[in-house]
Amino acid sequence: MKIGIVGGTGGIGEGMALRLAPYHEVIIGSRDVEKACSVSEGTVAYLRDQGSKGHCIGLCNQDTVDEGDIIVLAIPYRFVESTLQELTGFEDKIVVSPVNPIEKSDSFYYAPPDEGSAAQRIARLLPQSAKVVTAFNNIAANRWKDLADALDYSVAVCGDDDRAKAEVMQLIDTISNLRAFDAGPLRMSSIVESITPLLLNLARFNQMKDVGIRFV
Amino acid sequence: MKIGIVGGTGGIGEGMALRLAPYHEVIIGSRDVEKACSVSEGTVAYLRDQGSKGHCIGLCNQDTVDEGDIIVLAIPYRFVESTLQELTGFEDKIVVSPVNPIEKSDSFYYAPPDEGSAAQRIARLLPQSAKVVTAFNNIAANRWKDLADALDYSVAVCGDDDRAKAEVMQLIDTISNLRAFDAGPLRMSSIVESITPLLLNLARFNQMKDVGIRFV
Repeated sequence: MKIGIVGGTGGIGEGMALRLAPYHEVIIGSRDVEKACSVSEGTVAYLRDQGSKGHCIGLCNQDTVDEGDIIVLAIPYRFVESTLQELTGFEDKIVVSPVNPIEKSDSFYYAPPDEGSAAQRIARLLPQSAKVVTAFNNIAANRWKDLADALDYSVAVCGDDDRAKAEVMQLIDTISNLRAFDAGPLRMSSIVESITPLLLNLARFNQMKDVGIRFV
Repeated sequence: MKIGIVGGTGGIGEGMALRLAPYHEVIIGSRDVEKACSVSEGTVAYLRDQGSKGHCIGLCNQDTVDEGDIIVLAIPYRFVESTLQELTGFEDKIVVSPVNPIEKSDSFYYAPPDEGSAAQRIARLLPQSAKVVTAFNNIAANRWKDLADALDYSVAVCGDDDRAKAEVMQLIDTISNLRAFDAGPLRMSSIVESITPLLLNLARFNQMKDVGIRFV
């Protein structure tokens, strides 16, 4: 299964590539192909240094969408609309949204669009046959990058297409100690996304770092 | 410290009394004083059977508010307004809201009032000097009652009065393995409350029971 990471040179994209490349064909996408190639080469080299092997290439975002079976939108919320407007070919693809619309005043808060959540907005911006699945929202970007550091978290997954959701849940279960949980239809995404500003506030108010979540 | 539980004869109130009575003076409040007394006697008897001791009395809801230092509103959301309209004397009290405004269609969803959350609505219904603190929202009622069953959860706590919040957090840390986390001001309560329908859906869609949360 080919995983295409749009915005794959950013913090979470780069770390996700590292975790996925040993088990899947990963495509790191970027507006800047050279940067994508350099990050993908860095990923393979880092894995080699760890005595591991990985399959990872770098492409432009459009080629990443065209080549990937599962497309992860590893982009900040504020760039979602402009990025998707530049891209085509999402028909029938599984599109994973780890995107959280967050603002900050004296503390972080959830600032969803009119659609109710980032995931629902993404679904509206994409062709109807694209299968949007919410996942990976509550894992701090920092935690992805250090392979020695187990990701021991629960991942809530929302989506309206059962088969797409099942594929993404299967993918999640291959990554470190992550465990996928079916959190229902796509309209439940707002709750999952809103947990992220809560976690950021918890870190801040309780002198913690990179707080995650576990369902027990 | 006297903990008054308004609605203390309901599922969560009764279980909470059991957990608190060995360490605090607990008042079980009810509209029906006889029921309150019978539940409080049951609580003390149950603790005695377990080789433990507990301080627990039963009163009407109004006396519970008058006598308690910390008042827990252990009532379903739909009864909040009518219950609070019948009661007075909340001035300067710490009022704990474990209340979640939840509705159900094909899955559970969060249905907050115009104020943004149940806690903020409660704050509006009470005198301004009452210190509303959101806590205990994400623990399944079932889990409170079996003392042999450790409550190994995180508890997100919101409130605008730092001293009141600190007192409630201290109280939480005395209960089983619960661990309190400062989740910021009262307006963050909507995120904490909305986690409960998520947990109910997770239980349903993943064949689990009484799902709780841990911040890690």
